[in-house]
Amino acid sequence: MKLLRVGTAGRERPALLDAGGTLRDLSGLVADIDGALLADAAALGRIRAAAGTGELPALDGTGLRIGPPVGRIGKVVCIGLNYHDHARETGAEPPAEPVIFLKAADTVVGPHDTVLIPRGSVKTDWEVELAVVIGRTARYLESAEEGLARVAGYAVAHDVSEREFQIERGGTWDKGKNCETFNPLGPWLVTADEVPDPQGLSLRLWVNGELQQDGTTADQIFPVGEVVRYVSRFMTLYPGDVINTGTPAGVAMGRAEPKPYLRAGDVVELEVGGLGRQRQVFGGG
Amino acid sequence: MKLLRVGTAGRERPALLDAGGTLRDLSGLVADIDGALLADAAALGRIRAAAGTGELPALDGTGLRIGPPVGRIGKVVCIGLNYHDHARETGAEPPAEPVIFLKAADTVVGPHDTVLIPRGSVKTDWEVELAVVIGRTARYLESAEEGLARVAGYAVAHDVSEREFQIERGGTWDKGKNCETFNPLGPWLVTADEVPDPQGLSLRLWVNGELQQDGTTADQIFPVGEVVRYVSRFMTLYPGDVINTGTPAGVAMGRAEPKPYLRAGDVVELEVGGLGRQRQVFGGG
Repeated sequence: MKLLRVGTAGRERPALLDAGGTLRDLSGLVADIDGALLADAAALGRIRAAAGTGELPALDGTGLRIGPPVGRIGKVVCIGLNYHDHARETGAEPPAEPVIFLKAADTVVGPHDTVLIPRGSVKTDWEVELAVVIGRTARYLESAEEGLARVAGYAVAHDVSEREFQIERGGTWDKGKNCETFNPLGPWLVTADEVPDPQGLSLRLWVNGELQQDGTTADQIFPVGEVVRYVSRFMTLYPGDVINTGTPAGVAMGRAEPKPYLRAGDVVELEVGGLGRQRQVFGGG
Repeated sequence: MKLLRVGTAGRERPALLDAGGTLRDLSGLVADIDGALLADAAALGRIRAAAGTGELPALDGTGLRIGPPVGRIGKVVCIGLNYHDHARETGAEPPAEPVIFLKAADTVVGPHDTVLIPRGSVKTDWEVELAVVIGRTARYLESAEEGLARVAGYAVAHDVSEREFQIERGGTWDKGKNCETFNPLGPWLVTADEVPDPQGLSLRLWVNGELQQDGTTADQIFPVGEVVRYVSRFMTLYPGDVINTGTPAGVAMGRAEPKPYLRAGDVVELEVGGLGRQRQVFGGG
């Protein structure tokens, strides 16, 4: 299923994009798409059944904002340098174990919302990523199989990054990762049953129409199930938590000088195979 | 005012510790103590008025668990190496600008809850800190005065840290800061009007009755108002967000070998002058 949330920011209603491409209202069936729903197999079953009978009311999507596909996100855990080609372009050795950093859930916006370049920023960069949404609590998992079994679904994430704040201002990467609007998510949450191989997904990102990133999750150093297992040894993952699993090569930081960092007015489009497409106009903070 | 939340984890009710030391029930007046309440001057005024008349029902505190004093925390922003004496003991230069890292809100527990030593941990360490709770949105502030004006109140925080995970496992400090139960908070939120000088507070921490940390916020490299201003340039702070403003000298990591890291069964007590006292028994993960 493709689950999404539509409407004004903070007041989104739950919806489904059905197999025929029609937007269906789920608000008569469930309160929201959030961790509680994703952990509730019976409620997900009711959505699936209703989708099958075609009884869900159609929604007119014209002019309707799409919000992030998950509400009340607890935390966004990010994996750094998780693609061989991206590690190479940054000049870093491939990490011996996953690199973890955090984004606050309040950075998450809808897939087509304006992204704000922070005041004083001269190194705002793009990163297309496969996001994993947790469906069952993950704590000290033993295997990658257990890790995969905790995944409720997948979505496109844009891990927007300010490289000066991240690297040149002291402290951890978090300083350049948590600026307002820095994590567009969506358009949909595609449930895990419809993504049989998360290691076979293409990732692409364009800036003002020019292709900048063109990768595949097959190049991930640590695959999705292993990432979930690993993270669960250091922190407990709860339903509705999100993991951004890293970005492939092609970011601005990896280019020759002058590096093509983003400016107000730039348009970024990104997609992950089968998970939909985002488009953001960048604005001033 | 001293605001707190009492009851079973996840089902705490709002309460007040009045000037005479009596616990008073606020659940007839407000739904919870959270960012929405802290941003609502009228609701805080109603609590203050009711406290003054003595009309609030008394609560029997016997056997009542104290939860974290703020519900629905959005994010916990932490400042690293913010005391001259602690920077010295770790061998680090005092930072030129604040070091920022993040804890997820799900690490926050009550002040007397069990803290779980992570499985496989051999370097679980203590850190008494002054926590700041945000009352008004802070975004690109210009001055430390503006920073202080965004503070709703203060509380004791225990920024529990796993040093091997933090420093020796690659990536950012977040890996050793986000283990389950790693951020006891409380017992109370003391409103800012009752803390005229946040730079004149003592901080003390004992392990099994022995004093280990004995510092003062006068030693902070970046004082509270400046910390709020600085953080607001990199991320937006919302009502109910928490900032742990750093720890003074005396952590296990700063000692001679063999360093006295925590083990299951250890008892840690900590206090910040005027903000109350925490006590945790450490347990196995």
